[in-house]
Amino acid sequence: MLKDASIVREGDYILLYYSKNKKIIAKATRDKKIHTHEGIVDCNEIIGKKYGDIITTHLGQPLIVTRPTFLDFLTKFKRKTQVIYPKDLALIVFLSGVGPGSIVVEAGTGSGFLTAALAYYVRPDGRVYSYEIRRDFLEIARKNLSLCGLLPYVDLKHKDIVDGIDEKNVDAVILDMPNPWDVVPHAKEALKDGGVFVSFLPTINQVEKIVEKLIHENFLDVLTIETLLRKIKVKKGETRPETFMIGHTGYIVFARKP
Amino acid sequence: MLKDASIVREGDYILLYYSKNKKIIAKATRDKKIHTHEGIVDCNEIIGKKYGDIITTHLGQPLIVTRPTFLDFLTKFKRKTQVIYPKDLALIVFLSGVGPGSIVVEAGTGSGFLTAALAYYVRPDGRVYSYEIRRDFLEIARKNLSLCGLLPYVDLKHKDIVDGIDEKNVDAVILDMPNPWDVVPHAKEALKDGGVFVSFLPTINQVEKIVEKLIHENFLDVLTIETLLRKIKVKKGETRPETFMIGHTGYIVFARKP
Amino acid sequence: MLKDASIVREGDYILLYYSKNKKIIAKATRDKKIHTHEGIVDCNEIIGKKYGDIITTHLGQPLIVTRPTFLDFLTKFKRKTQVIYPKDLALIVFLSGVGPGSIVVEAGTGSGFLTAALAYYVRPDGRVYSYEIRRDFLEIARKNLSLCGLLPYVDLKHKDIVDGIDEKNVDAVILDMPNPWDVVPHAKEALKDGGVFVSFLPTINQVEKIVEKLIHENFLDVLTIETLLRKIKVKKGETRPETFMIGHTGYIVFARKP
Amino acid sequence: MLKDASIVREGDYILLYYSKNKKIIAKATRDKKIHTHEGIVDCNEIIGKKYGDIITTHLGQPLIVTRPTFLDFLTKFKRKTQVIYPKDLALIVFLSGVGPGSIVVEAGTGSGFLTAALAYYVRPDGRVYSYEIRRDFLEIARKNLSLCGLLPYVDLKHKDIVDGIDEKNVDAVILDMPNPWDVVPHAKEALKDGGVFVSFLPTINQVEKIVEKLIHENFLDVLTIETLLRKIKVKKGETRPETFMIGHTGYIVFARKP
Repeated sequence: MLKDASIVREGDYILLYYSKNKKIIAKATRDKKIHTHEGIVDCNEIIGKKYGDIITTHLGQPLIVTRPTFLDFLTKFKRKTQVIYPKDLALIVFLSGVGPGSIVVEAGTGSGFLTAALAYYVRPDGRVYSYEIRRDFLEIARKNLSLCGLLPYVDLKHKDIVDGIDEKNVDAVILDMPNPWDVVPHAKEALKDGGVFVSFLPTINQVEKIVEKLIHENFLDVLTIETLLRKIKVKKGETRPETFMIGHTGYIVFARKP
Repeated sequence: MLKDASIVREGDYILLYYSKNKKIIAKATRDKKIHTHEGIVDCNEIIGKKYGDIITTHLGQPLIVTRPTFLDFLTKFKRKTQVIYPKDLALIVFLSGVGPGSIVVEAGTGSGFLTAALAYYVRPDGRVYSYEIRRDFLEIARKNLSLCGLLPYVDLKHKDIVDGIDEKNVDAVILDMPNPWDVVPHAKEALKDGGVFVSFLPTINQVEKIVEKLIHENFLDVLTIETLLRKIKVKKGETRPETFMIGHTGYIVFARKP
Repeated sequence: MLKDASIVREGDYILLYYSKNKKIIAKATRDKKIHTHEGIVDCNEIIGKKYGDIITTHLGQPLIVTRPTFLDFLTKFKRKTQVIYPKDLALIVFLSGVGPGSIVVEAGTGSGFLTAALAYYVRPDGRVYSYEIRRDFLEIARKNLSLCGLLPYVDLKHKDIVDGIDEKNVDAVILDMPNPWDVVPHAKEALKDGGVFVSFLPTINQVEKIVEKLIHENFLDVLTIETLLRKIKVKKGETRPETFMIGHTGYIVFARKP
Repeated sequence: MLKDASIVREGDYILLYYSKNKKIIAKATRDKKIHTHEGIVDCNEIIGKKYGDIITTHLGQPLIVTRPTFLDFLTKFKRKTQVIYPKDLALIVFLSGVGPGSIVVEAGTGSGFLTAALAYYVRPDGRVYSYEIRRDFLEIARKNLSLCGLLPYVDLKHKDIVDGIDEKNVDAVILDMPNPWDVVPHAKEALKDGGVFVSFLPTINQVEKIVEKLIHENFLDVLTIETLLRKIKVKKGETRPETFMIGHTGYIVFARKP
């Protein structure tokens, strides 16, 4: 995913900027054309160029050729489900301690946004076991994970996690599903000592229910948070927070295996 | 840091819980005693126990022996400087795309909290080059990084980053210093195409100054955010956000190399 | 505005609810018809009915006839300018101490939202002197204030407040204009001892400039705040904050005459 | 309370500033002394001075003599109960439409903060009927309301509002009590058409319960909000929100009589 060579090769994903904050992600495929809002470019022209070079569309619009990062790929993911926002992905990954080498169980897979974030961070030696009951979602997630080269780090499992977790001694169990309480006993069995349970939930009623279950099962350090992310419009003499913001995405509940 | 064996060995760091959310982190050193608020325990008794076992202090208080995670270590770090909160560390790491294998330049090292977070996520093949002008801070950071086993992934450099960045083709330059604008031209040279520049700043005036500089240097996707983290007290029938919260830590400015 | 009689009389403004949170405000004018989204009603049928009665449109939709409050009128105001949100009006009125009997100077009038809020609260013995340089705005404000019966409490002045304040010994000077610093010396002269200066400003740069000016002029208790209002979707078992919220309207700066 | 004369008279409450934001409120009583953190002043010396004059303590500290506003009095109120913050008082008053002439029913009186805010705004022709079951709280509220001259606008009633509301045709029923649902049927009877019901509640569970009750009783425009107030430290070149803030006080539920 993060190729170091400075030359665009066939098959590379590239990020084309039209302006300081407008961009498109595309694959450099021989004999294909890339359609942008500012005109068409020929992939054959791009392949062999250096990253950082500027090319022009048939309408004369200059485009900067650069490398996508993991987050750029996320924006290209197909979405068939409600997805978790980057602000929440960031806190789920960081506060759960998931990192290189971690073994993580996740459900449900959905469109694979959280799966991708986890896979990105457990590389190269960790693994994500992702449970999903809907086969159509698994297929979307598979395509999304392939797109950014993260499929090798993930086991997509067509199975209801409520029926049990096959893995043992895992570092974290991370749930984005409406009924996480049904998974708590399985999570307790699957987690290693000190392992982290995480649940992402939109309503406060679900939060009450999962916290009650976690306390009943003697989990430690039960913590519930929500975050608000505010974007600031910065311009000399006219600096102010943006008028509109996302007021709520979901609550994140963390706990440690007892 | 994340040993899988289920037995506590000499030299292991262990996490001892007195209650559901009170804990201490300590090293299991032969012939040493660990003093807790609830009494003393003998390390010789702990070594050889299994993680998850319960031991008792000389006052009869039961303690659960478990494994610390990366975040537990952060709480044990010595602090000689203002440190970045986990909510901000999470977003800096995630939104900069820093992950396994990333090459990151950071300044100033300070007490090493951000350094540790970056080192944790670039493992095992990436590297953090951390610049600091104060030798005493470098020593504290060295101890903190040693504590959690992350020193092997970090180059602590006693050098003013304003004088230049030695590294080339890096994935990210991340600055927690009062005058990041003086580093922008160096960052531009050091970053690979599409590489990410990050600056963490407490005041809005610094934000205006860095954003102006980044735009002047043609950086792309300049984004300024701040986050508010709210803890929720969850108890059946008495659920409410906590009365006190941190109202401001700092702004995070992101940009991409042009 | 707040007639106590329980019978709808000709000329009354009435509030018609179609559903639990959809409504229209209209004037009961003999021989006129009111067009709602759910059909037409004849005013002659409404006049003489009791508040609380239900009438039906020509489409058979039942409507509850009720009395508008001050806030209902605000929603019917014509807007030619950016207007101040209720959350900010509330804090401006309350934290400035403006109440019945207060003498208030305000600029600029704009569409008259803040003027109306101030007039509503200074009744019956106080007065609002509202300065505006644009005659077209004054006309809109005049219509809006007439609509809700508050015009008798307001002097609409076609004058640039930067040229001076005619009134003396006033309780508050409240400014919703881009250059309040030009008014500070006039405000100092016009305010009584302990009188309150308020400025509503969208950008942080304006806030810095007005605060600097106020401190330079020895104003006391200089305080700058912003508020975030979050709506909660409450439904048994599905309670959560609303997804979208207003992230920023403006900062409010308060100070006391020295 | 808001005497216009510019001379301090015996019996006046005065506000003495030691510095730009430190102050004390005191009564100018002949032959009494006022003890401040910066020394003692003799009331006889203050009586007859003009507001805005400067006097000095026996330690030579200059004090500015000025007039208190309603909010200054609130800070001097005795507190025997949890009190409602100004940010919430402001929204309760404003969004309920309570203003000059309003007839308001309130419970429980508590220390009288909300009572005072309501009384301040219904003057001179409105009235606040405040119910409280604890006689000791009523006595504190009586003293607090006397202090700022608002007692004439209030009926303090030693009665459990759950047993019924004596008043009819009121503009608003405003409840700061743990079990507001028990009052909803009484409120429905007491309110005039279009009248506003308000409940201030610390927990989300109480909010769910009152909203359910209000909807069951066919109340209109049921709205639940919470507000966050952020203070900004403004200083040229060092401007930033304050580090600590109040993260939660309570939710405010509004509804209209059906």
